[in-house]
Amino acid sequence: MSKGEKDVTIYDIADKLNISAATVSRALKDHPRVNKNTKKLIVKTAEEMGYLSNSFASNLRKKSSNIIGLIVPRLNSNFMADVIAGIEKVLNNNNYNLFISQSLETMTKEIANANAMLVNRVDGLLVSLAYDTTNIDHFDPFIKRQVPVIFFDRVFESDSCPQIYIDNQKAAYEVTSHLIKQGCKRVMHITASQLRNVYADRLAGYKKALEDNAIKFDESLVIINDLSREAGIQAAQQILDMPNKPDGIFVANDSCAVSCMQTLIKAGINIPHDIAVAGFNNDPMTCVIEPNLTTVNYKGYEMGEVAAKLVIDRLVNKNEFHPAHGVILRSELIVRESSTRIT
Amino acid sequence: MSKGEKDVTIYDIADKLNISAATVSRALKDHPRVNKNTKKLIVKTAEEMGYLSNSFASNLRKKSSNIIGLIVPRLNSNFMADVIAGIEKVLNNNNYNLFISQSLETMTKEIANANAMLVNRVDGLLVSLAYDTTNIDHFDPFIKRQVPVIFFDRVFESDSCPQIYIDNQKAAYEVTSHLIKQGCKRVMHITASQLRNVYADRLAGYKKALEDNAIKFDESLVIINDLSREAGIQAAQQILDMPNKPDGIFVANDSCAVSCMQTLIKAGINIPHDIAVAGFNNDPMTCVIEPNLTTVNYKGYEMGEVAAKLVIDRLVNKNEFHPAHGVILRSELIVRESSTRIT
Repeated sequence: MSKGEKDVTIYDIADKLNISAATVSRALKDHPRVNKNTKKLIVKTAEEMGYLSNSFASNLRKKSSNIIGLIVPRLNSNFMADVIAGIEKVLNNNNYNLFISQSLETMTKEIANANAMLVNRVDGLLVSLAYDTTNIDHFDPFIKRQVPVIFFDRVFESDSCPQIYIDNQKAAYEVTSHLIKQGCKRVMHITASQLRNVYADRLAGYKKALEDNAIKFDESLVIINDLSREAGIQAAQQILDMPNKPDGIFVANDSCAVSCMQTLIKAGINIPHDIAVAGFNNDPMTCVIEPNLTTVNYKGYEMGEVAAKLVIDRLVNKNEFHPAHGVILRSELIVRESSTRIT
Repeated sequence: MSKGEKDVTIYDIADKLNISAATVSRALKDHPRVNKNTKKLIVKTAEEMGYLSNSFASNLRKKSSNIIGLIVPRLNSNFMADVIAGIEKVLNNNNYNLFISQSLETMTKEIANANAMLVNRVDGLLVSLAYDTTNIDHFDPFIKRQVPVIFFDRVFESDSCPQIYIDNQKAAYEVTSHLIKQGCKRVMHITASQLRNVYADRLAGYKKALEDNAIKFDESLVIINDLSREAGIQAAQQILDMPNKPDGIFVANDSCAVSCMQTLIKAGINIPHDIAVAGFNNDPMTCVIEPNLTTVNYKGYEMGEVAAKLVIDRLVNKNEFHPAHGVILRSELIVRESSTRIT
């Protein structure tokens, strides 16, 4: 409440009805000792007077807010929208509400978000980490208070916090192997901050596939940027300037892959014949771009469901987490025209 | 806090240091009467013991949470991501946090979201309404407590709540007039729930443009759906089955327009020559689809900024809202190849 008008108290209701505050309090808690008609009158009066049960105090007593907090890097992706839809389905079924905030890829904002969630005493916290987060000390106050913290997708190794993710190394290995099988000999990899498991593991999978195909790893063929649309355009310009161009590109997300492809196509590059391209995430945009983009499908909805179920299991069913609990979800390579040279 | 461990209180700190709880309380409030070194010791001990200042009680006293609530229909759109980015910039600058929830286009969930925001005593609320919301009674408890409620984009007429939107009728008039100028004689309009100003006003603008061009309004050329990708595919199938097909389509959002276009193109329809198409929102996807989609650009970022500034003005600068306060933002028609028949 910002100003002015005072909240209605049980004393105001008691005054108005000329009965004791204790009776009002009991009636509003549906206590059996209060006469049914009196109870009705009190509830009706309370509603008319705009009485708001003191949720802060009530939360203090119950030590429970029925709110789960979610901190994600960015809301602006189809993957995250799917994750949130999965989380909301499970929480709604269990009468929990979801409060969402985004770190905008910075640890500073992630810490501020965590503090705001702490102050509001969320009952649990689901987190996917920002690009530059170097430690998870900002989640210690939750862990100390036994508020469950669960990492998904962009996770952090921790005995106290379960982690849900896909096998990023395997997925990247499959993409890179596929490009090599299509005849690519100089495969470029465009990815993001190596502080994050998803990007470090994808780079590892890319390297492993090169190794298994006796292709020497060439550091000049790896670009690390923020995987934005703008970064895709810049990467394409960098490629166009290269005297010895790559013949394949594996980009660690779809929106960067699409803007990179568009820029290359405008410059006269034939995709897939000059350069074969693959992305990651299976965003709807992959089926709009021509040629359609080869990508990795992984189920955000399922990831959200699993994360929410873990937190509910802990809160409602009082199940303990196993130490270093990890859940690895499936992903699959989807081959489309952007990388199909051999048919 | 879900279970187990009890929160550390000022009494625990007092016990540990063998000083009075009153001194601890004063020290933690940075009271001048407490000796500087004692203060330091108390603050350090409190931190070590994991003391969390009682924010609920503190909020009760301050009557302020420094949290602004946001309720939107869906997070999964570029427009909404832009709006949220604009809101967050302004709130961060003013040390407010943002809690976000989505109604998933239903009034039922919108009411649940509003109640959760009320219980957590947000200091202000920004709302864009769900498809089927018929009244705004669920925001009355906020208005009664003088918590500012601001509607943006999908607004509701109310003297108590400022509204921020674009001139949807004018924008739709421009789109339809453009299609008619390109030679279209049977322009179809695909839109959503007429309970919402944005869709009702766009239909009105479409009708007005027909009227001003002496084209008779034909109810069979209006499709009302949920503007999803799936709805776009269905609309295209419906069009393909029509003996007397439209020669122009104005769709009230881009993602539905794109999936509709893709389905028509696959069926052999030439766009723009057989059917000219225009969307609404200027999503990045409009520049990925071939031919690029004509659309209406309106600045979500600016809309978010304006909404957040209004709420901050009210909370920080104590500015009163003007009754029936409305802010109309600019929009612009962007003509691309999907509707360019005459060059």
